[in-house]
Amino acid sequence: MFNFRNDYHDLCHPAVLEKLKTLQEEGNIGYGYDPHCERAADLICDAIGERLPVHFVPGGTAANALALGFRLLPHEAVVSADSGHIVSDEVGAIEAGGHKIVTVETEDGKYDPEKLEEFLNTFGSFHNVLPGIIYLSNATETGRVYTKEELAEIRRVADRHELPVYIDGARMGSALTSEACDLTLSDYPKYADIFSIGGTKNGALYGEALVFGDKRLAEEFIYYQKQRSLLLAKGFALGAQFEALFEDGLFFDIAKTANAMASVLYDKLSEAGYAPMYPLESNQIFVEVEGEKLEKLAEGGQFEVIEKGAKSIVRFVTSYQTRPEEVDALIDILNA
Amino acid sequence: MFNFRNDYHDLCHPAVLEKLKTLQEEGNIGYGYDPHCERAADLICDAIGERLPVHFVPGGTAANALALGFRLLPHEAVVSADSGHIVSDEVGAIEAGGHKIVTVETEDGKYDPEKLEEFLNTFGSFHNVLPGIIYLSNATETGRVYTKEELAEIRRVADRHELPVYIDGARMGSALTSEACDLTLSDYPKYADIFSIGGTKNGALYGEALVFGDKRLAEEFIYYQKQRSLLLAKGFALGAQFEALFEDGLFFDIAKTANAMASVLYDKLSEAGYAPMYPLESNQIFVEVEGEKLEKLAEGGQFEVIEKGAKSIVRFVTSYQTRPEEVDALIDILNA
Amino acid sequence: MFNFRNDYHDLCHPAVLEKLKTLQEEGNIGYGYDPHCERAADLICDAIGERLPVHFVPGGTAANALALGFRLLPHEAVVSADSGHIVSDEVGAIEAGGHKIVTVETEDGKYDPEKLEEFLNTFGSFHNVLPGIIYLSNATETGRVYTKEELAEIRRVADRHELPVYIDGARMGSALTSEACDLTLSDYPKYADIFSIGGTKNGALYGEALVFGDKRLAEEFIYYQKQRSLLLAKGFALGAQFEALFEDGLFFDIAKTANAMASVLYDKLSEAGYAPMYPLESNQIFVEVEGEKLEKLAEGGQFEVIEKGAKSIVRFVTSYQTRPEEVDALIDILNA
Amino acid sequence: MFNFRNDYHDLCHPAVLEKLKTLQEEGNIGYGYDPHCERAADLICDAIGERLPVHFVPGGTAANALALGFRLLPHEAVVSADSGHIVSDEVGAIEAGGHKIVTVETEDGKYDPEKLEEFLNTFGSFHNVLPGIIYLSNATETGRVYTKEELAEIRRVADRHELPVYIDGARMGSALTSEACDLTLSDYPKYADIFSIGGTKNGALYGEALVFGDKRLAEEFIYYQKQRSLLLAKGFALGAQFEALFEDGLFFDIAKTANAMASVLYDKLSEAGYAPMYPLESNQIFVEVEGEKLEKLAEGGQFEVIEKGAKSIVRFVTSYQTRPEEVDALIDILNA
Repeated sequence: MFNFRNDYHDLCHPAVLEKLKTLQEEGNIGYGYDPHCERAADLICDAIGERLPVHFVPGGTAANALALGFRLLPHEAVVSADSGHIVSDEVGAIEAGGHKIVTVETEDGKYDPEKLEEFLNTFGSFHNVLPGIIYLSNATETGRVYTKEELAEIRRVADRHELPVYIDGARMGSALTSEACDLTLSDYPKYADIFSIGGTKNGALYGEALVFGDKRLAEEFIYYQKQRSLLLAKGFALGAQFEALFEDGLFFDIAKTANAMASVLYDKLSEAGYAPMYPLESNQIFVEVEGEKLEKLAEGGQFEVIEKGAKSIVRFVTSYQTRPEEVDALIDILNA
Repeated sequence: MFNFRNDYHDLCHPAVLEKLKTLQEEGNIGYGYDPHCERAADLICDAIGERLPVHFVPGGTAANALALGFRLLPHEAVVSADSGHIVSDEVGAIEAGGHKIVTVETEDGKYDPEKLEEFLNTFGSFHNVLPGIIYLSNATETGRVYTKEELAEIRRVADRHELPVYIDGARMGSALTSEACDLTLSDYPKYADIFSIGGTKNGALYGEALVFGDKRLAEEFIYYQKQRSLLLAKGFALGAQFEALFEDGLFFDIAKTANAMASVLYDKLSEAGYAPMYPLESNQIFVEVEGEKLEKLAEGGQFEVIEKGAKSIVRFVTSYQTRPEEVDALIDILNA
Repeated sequence: MFNFRNDYHDLCHPAVLEKLKTLQEEGNIGYGYDPHCERAADLICDAIGERLPVHFVPGGTAANALALGFRLLPHEAVVSADSGHIVSDEVGAIEAGGHKIVTVETEDGKYDPEKLEEFLNTFGSFHNVLPGIIYLSNATETGRVYTKEELAEIRRVADRHELPVYIDGARMGSALTSEACDLTLSDYPKYADIFSIGGTKNGALYGEALVFGDKRLAEEFIYYQKQRSLLLAKGFALGAQFEALFEDGLFFDIAKTANAMASVLYDKLSEAGYAPMYPLESNQIFVEVEGEKLEKLAEGGQFEVIEKGAKSIVRFVTSYQTRPEEVDALIDILNA
Repeated sequence: MFNFRNDYHDLCHPAVLEKLKTLQEEGNIGYGYDPHCERAADLICDAIGERLPVHFVPGGTAANALALGFRLLPHEAVVSADSGHIVSDEVGAIEAGGHKIVTVETEDGKYDPEKLEEFLNTFGSFHNVLPGIIYLSNATETGRVYTKEELAEIRRVADRHELPVYIDGARMGSALTSEACDLTLSDYPKYADIFSIGGTKNGALYGEALVFGDKRLAEEFIYYQKQRSLLLAKGFALGAQFEALFEDGLFFDIAKTANAMASVLYDKLSEAGYAPMYPLESNQIFVEVEGEKLEKLAEGGQFEVIEKGAKSIVRFVTSYQTRPEEVDALIDILNA
């Protein structure tokens, strides 16, 4: 039986659990004011190469809602690619905070900077909202990644419109260790005013880090985080997880393993005549599968059906736990 | 060094961590649709003696915000005792959801049913909000507990005004194992339409259970929970924790230990001439300490100063981890 | 000089001002509890042929926000045609109330019932919002009107999905007096759970009526209206205006005059070689005008440019105040 | 029959209606971009002695909600006297916008600057909200007025806490023409960052002016106003009303007349043995009336009962329409 449903069906990486265990006899202060959060922030800043404010939040939707909603004025909207996770996978969390999302059409989940610019130019009448912040994710919902030059281009558009940029890094690990991506963590503050580093989909039990490119942007953030019920009392447990992830580069090792397994799966799918829909860039693969095969596949393991049809679109996600046997089991069914 | 700061400075009870560990090789489905959440809900329903919808949420403020905000209409307010946690300890989370909190004066954090009734009678003009739900906590912020008869009385008031009741059980464990409290978990559905069972302050790593007294009230709740960014992807880890807590009554054992240590501390404080402000009813003790002693205490360990003054009010909280030596260390300083 | 900019550049119909004047020596009670609001509601109910709750609100965006937001649960969304006024002309008012708008593609602003049904069928996953109410406008933003059969079809779709329907009647007058529309006011309660009757664009100084198809739906509405700052203290002035509009059918006469002038303009535009984009159905006409002519037109009077381009799309709106000379002045420029 | 219920039971001052009438043949542009709004703003700025941004809004609750909510961050609260109109007379409008109101105890509705300072000093923990703006009204709900020195003192407190101040001027006319008040309109920008000038209770048909002490504070305000459904399409009608009120000082004359009648009533009440509860400072008078008299009074005309009891507290409000005969009729009953 294979499990390609998602990259968060594991409990957490063993090293994360080990680290948590070491806290059991400690008596830590609450709400993130503990030495573990401090050290985790330090390790992350080491990886970035810059001292920046870092806050830990319980999950990915939380990271997005907090980063986007904190300083937006009521009449300001969030700009997103039409495929953005915030658009149709977070039950209107952004709107629940009072803000419209305005969407830019994309082909594959990545902004075309020119189209973004044109889109931003359509605003300015008081009958409609004003763009207030640009949301993008790397890797995107479609498994694509941005290059340095692409992010630089988007940054230029944002600057011309005096808009901050938030990068959703729910799958940052997979992006940064992708061969298609020439970015490192140290590039992020150039392109993003705020960005998240995803733990949940990369070996943590729960939690993401939010990094603020500008100290003043983070001021009083903890108030907002608590108001939204997203400041955990035992914040130290979040800190400890990110300590584990950023000691000795575990965060990147986990992602590399997931990407490597995606690469194996990608090649075998292609060989089996199931050419994936997009070039391989991270740990997500989208493939069209016809009706009967789909049923067989469903008996063999777990995965998500993105769109039902004569040929359905299915998604396979790999993780650091993916075993070669799982790939083989999947391919065997397709070849049968 | 003693630590009476709070009941959530531990990582979690060892049995909770053990249980989590057993999930490491499993591949669970996300968002609470897994066997661990199902079994945890079953165990809780066994303890209640009734099959009711149970949802797991990441923390106490989350439990309150979700339970109170889900089905309230915009013009409806939350009724709370003036000392309620939602009033001044959650950064306006209820108001951030669009609802006013209207407060009833209390002497010690517990509603006087007559005053509550009088208070509710003052509403009805369209210039002001309408009460929409009654919030109470057991144990209260002041460490007091309600008896069956007291809750029954409040329920009658609520029924006369056709108002649902939510009981915040962040410290339910301590309340239900208190000698001052004749309630059992099975009484809760009679008095509360919704109630929370606090894990964070009673041995869990994170998380509370929300129990709905009425199936229909829980319908579509998961949408709201996700919208508020409070539906964790790895929901199974929440389920597993509550499995550990409700197997063999661990939840109550943890609380009993905390209460027992509070009792020891309470008696020794009284002997030492520091008579606590309220009768001992749970795991929180409030004492007045004069200036110099306060400084000495602060050197000896951790606790919270609730109100500064010539005589300051300090709070000591015990937990299942409290050791007799900690009590002695505290008393020694007071006696010095 | 002509003025085809909109149908609300007048102060109000003289009869409305006359009626207001008669209140000057009265001392009316506030907030809509006065005899004028009562009589206006009666007159409207006479026109409907049914006793229904009627509330008066200050404007069209207010009517929409109040009708749609009042009883929606937080995770419920408003369904709208992509061209809906609430989508891009109300600065995100619906989202500011916490609700997402989900949009159905249309060709001309009118729902295709089949596409609506398909669209509604795509919901049901807890990752996304749930539809909570269907918004439609008659006449639409594009000047189109619905027929009985079309509304009946939409109603059937709504019923299958157990969704209430709100009809935005900002231009109801123009719709109901259109030759393309076989509806009367008495049909509305069959198709809509709530609907607005637009005064501002049909001779009132300010204000719309909101009619509730179901008494219970209107319960406590006044609380919500006041909370949103949309309950005017001098409510009697709103009542008086609708008295004037619904005495002797003035509301419909005003609209008929506007439609008649639209018909004249429509024919002359066609003759002049400027065939309007849609069939004539109400008091709005959309025409493509090339660059140079556009400049000439702009010198000759007022109108709105909807979309700029080599051929720009412009909108001409008629009202009860439109004079034949204005039509001629416009046509002269086009013919020059 | 007398009518002391409130100062908004009239339609409007005849000069206001006359002015409105002059617009009937004009074709004005919408949303406040017309010459009437421009001229009204100019007249107001003349009275202030400074060029400041002025926006017109439909009513008093609207003015408060808009001024307070526009630039507040989500975790920031509104500071108010416990008797503030926003606290219990606006159905939680501020909370509906997501913000908590934190209240300072007062004796008579006016801030004691020292108590305000102490109150503000209690904030700063991330468990609670942060004060974001100070709300005060002049005249207050209790009919009291502030002096220059009192406002200067409050301003100093606000400055020490870096908080903006908003003054609710729903009854500004009555305050500024009060003998107890040494303020003029030109003093307001020194003490308030934003303030409203109440039309509804001072001769307008509807509407208040919002004045921004700082140009940047007003930037993009029109977006927020429209989003909250509080930007009327026929904005010119609001402008015209304020033109009428600020031509030749009508605004102040109206208020003076109301105050003068209050003075007559005040003296006669005192003579009749019904000494008002507060010194006479504006157009509101609060008196205790025993049970039987209350019934007689209720037969003789209109007024509000503020608090029912053996001795009830009733409120008499005068306006520019109050006639001496009404005062006599009231006094006759009390003397009977």
